[in-house]
Amino acid sequence: MTTTAEAGTATIPLDDLHASLADPLLDAMTFLNEVTERYPDALSFAPGRPHEGFFEPGDVHADLDTYLRHLREERGLSDSAVRTALFQYGPTKGIIADLLARTLANDEGLDVAPESLVLTVGAQEGMLLVLRALCATPEDVLLVSSPCYVGVTGAARLLDLTTVPVPEGPGGGPDPEAVRAAARAVRAAGRRPRAFYVVPDFANPSGTSMPVAARAGLLAVAAEEGLLVIEDNPYGFFSRQEGERPTLKALDGNRGRVVHLGSFAKTCFPGARLGYVVADQRVTAPDGRTTLLADELAKLKSMTTVNTPALSQAVIGGMLLRHGCRLRTANAPARAHYAANLDVLLRELERHFPAAERERLGVSWNEPEGGFFAVLRVPFTADEAAMERCAREHGVLWTPMAPFYPAGGGEQWLRLSISALDGRQIEEGVARLAAFVRAAAR
Amino acid sequence: MTTTAEAGTATIPLDDLHASLADPLLDAMTFLNEVTERYPDALSFAPGRPHEGFFEPGDVHADLDTYLRHLREERGLSDSAVRTALFQYGPTKGIIADLLARTLANDEGLDVAPESLVLTVGAQEGMLLVLRALCATPEDVLLVSSPCYVGVTGAARLLDLTTVPVPEGPGGGPDPEAVRAAARAVRAAGRRPRAFYVVPDFANPSGTSMPVAARAGLLAVAAEEGLLVIEDNPYGFFSRQEGERPTLKALDGNRGRVVHLGSFAKTCFPGARLGYVVADQRVTAPDGRTTLLADELAKLKSMTTVNTPALSQAVIGGMLLRHGCRLRTANAPARAHYAANLDVLLRELERHFPAAERERLGVSWNEPEGGFFAVLRVPFTADEAAMERCAREHGVLWTPMAPFYPAGGGEQWLRLSISALDGRQIEEGVARLAAFVRAAAR
Repeated sequence: MTTTAEAGTATIPLDDLHASLADPLLDAMTFLNEVTERYPDALSFAPGRPHEGFFEPGDVHADLDTYLRHLREERGLSDSAVRTALFQYGPTKGIIADLLARTLANDEGLDVAPESLVLTVGAQEGMLLVLRALCATPEDVLLVSSPCYVGVTGAARLLDLTTVPVPEGPGGGPDPEAVRAAARAVRAAGRRPRAFYVVPDFANPSGTSMPVAARAGLLAVAAEEGLLVIEDNPYGFFSRQEGERPTLKALDGNRGRVVHLGSFAKTCFPGARLGYVVADQRVTAPDGRTTLLADELAKLKSMTTVNTPALSQAVIGGMLLRHGCRLRTANAPARAHYAANLDVLLRELERHFPAAERERLGVSWNEPEGGFFAVLRVPFTADEAAMERCAREHGVLWTPMAPFYPAGGGEQWLRLSISALDGRQIEEGVARLAAFVRAAAR
Repeated sequence: MTTTAEAGTATIPLDDLHASLADPLLDAMTFLNEVTERYPDALSFAPGRPHEGFFEPGDVHADLDTYLRHLREERGLSDSAVRTALFQYGPTKGIIADLLARTLANDEGLDVAPESLVLTVGAQEGMLLVLRALCATPEDVLLVSSPCYVGVTGAARLLDLTTVPVPEGPGGGPDPEAVRAAARAVRAAGRRPRAFYVVPDFANPSGTSMPVAARAGLLAVAAEEGLLVIEDNPYGFFSRQEGERPTLKALDGNRGRVVHLGSFAKTCFPGARLGYVVADQRVTAPDGRTTLLADELAKLKSMTTVNTPALSQAVIGGMLLRHGCRLRTANAPARAHYAANLDVLLRELERHFPAAERERLGVSWNEPEGGFFAVLRVPFTADEAAMERCAREHGVLWTPMAPFYPAGGGEQWLRLSISALDGRQIEEGVARLAAFVRAAAR
């Protein structure tokens, strides 16, 4: 008997449920999502959510109407067909792949056919689908850049997959030769390295970016070692300088080494929960028939969410049309906002922790070239208990880094997100944080 | 090397991907979703999608505004908090649990706390989460009523879980003693039966319903054999007669034997992709702390889709408010439509296959008490090839039943869905279908 009746209500032992539920990693993700609600008055460097000053409820109506008008006027759909598109079940790969393909061409220089795209419920669903497709057996291993976004290691846990961390190097992002060494070690142990997951631009959590040479090197290593690269790119538009680097997918062209995950959460808004996968790899069945990897992902998607809400696709489709399928341009104000915030963060850290004092205190941080995040090293264990003490006594929130390390580490690091604050809040937040660090270091 | 470079593009052998992708079951689901598009002019008894005569694009705007006004006026949220609720990431369990709990109380007599609810991306995501939570190891087995909705067996394949079919009995739905026997056989084979999946009202695909005595018997067997019952209830409102039967969850009260899956796809509209899980079971950790099963499902959900689109929840929330949280009443016209359609289908089958001729032809069908589906037995193999021939030569579509049988069977059965047609189309469709059956039987 796996459940017992007690006072009329069945009770289920946690040990009888899937092991991922006893893993602190999943609690860490829930913690990330809900921490802001628990300390509503604290200044929060915790959530990786976008600035909401650009959101207007009226835009939802306008964007929805724009998309429906597009269906009628540009695509020639009848009123009845428009109704079907909006209200009914729809194609598993999605309904706005045409607009997405145009946007990827404009913004990223990616030349991908709409058939190679799958619209997903956030990039998270895309991740789950890609991991499930690629990792066929318990022998299949996923390499991940470490520290790593918890959504990836979490999805791997849900599927009982093994992840092997490849540490970020001092040059920014993972060293291609370290990826090669990890792949070979996995193979030497009798298992199969399938893919390497990385956020090459302004990674979550560390904020680091891969130099162009390392990107080219990684693609070469992937080809030589028979790996696919899973590129996750939620922050790519938010550089502090002009002249963004090409994505791995753009560098790879049509060579099929890269499965590219994208998200509209930061470039449009998170409440649509819309992401996508670019999966133009050809898949060959034993009988010689070929499909696209996108089609295989769609088959799996029919078992996770059937299809992505038409409502979300219609509203984001309308936003794409409003901006001429150019989200990079549309996000210029957002980029300026995040870049200014990151500048303030780094300036205030300098001010509160002068160079002369830094070493004595045991405090250091990195200087990301863009994105939402920087990481700070402190001279004590920066765990959830420390964070709650900091929130309670100093009114400031941040994210412990340890959950981002699949194989341990990061205990004295914390992540600072600047995305949801303004400059004054960051100034005040760093002042409070500095007071906490000084108190905790004693 | 698991991928090979060829003409510049990596090709992935299908055999190197997860085994579910080589399973015809997943293709069957894609087939179900997309078949209508392939034969746009055929009369289609195939799709299980709702009648769209009740859908108006303008309602989306009105319902969204209704929900946002509710947040401001009834829940006292500031404009800024409303913006956060609509545009940002949100609580993993969802934002309209309060409205859903009121609706379940009004419509189903269910007394469940909002904390026990998880809003999901369709019932499909809820299914995946429940299977993942309950089936902890490869020894854990899911019993399913057979024929079975392919979304369940597909989700099980995606998670590498074993399903064991329990055939529907002649009395309608599964016989509780057959469930007991299956559970014991699984246990005797050294594995652990965890749960039994069933659609007690107007099942997909067979259209059959469980009598009240069998429902009570199933709950008793579940308690005695240590099983949970996963109740899926997308069609419950669409009875042909007055006096619906209580759901398993309603019969079980707060005894925690039932995890209840619900969907707004048929009672509101599919394009929102909104479903829910009622999971009020208590889960006890080794340290004695208890949570609700809903909270454990939410942890898993943070790894599948992070949270359900606020946009979908807001629009459905507005619909619930518009109807005073009474979807059963709101669906009275839909119920009348589906009941009338089912009446026409059964009448026309009678007319085209008179009793005197039926046995000679080898044709029979069931007489569901409600829902979208009935099943027809024909004197030949009713596979996808037969279906395409029928579409091409007779201009009518239906769904082969074999993919709904996890362990084989159903080869001479086909499923007829009446939901997306009107009475005249059903009359014409049955005439065409009868011509096809007579031709194919020769």
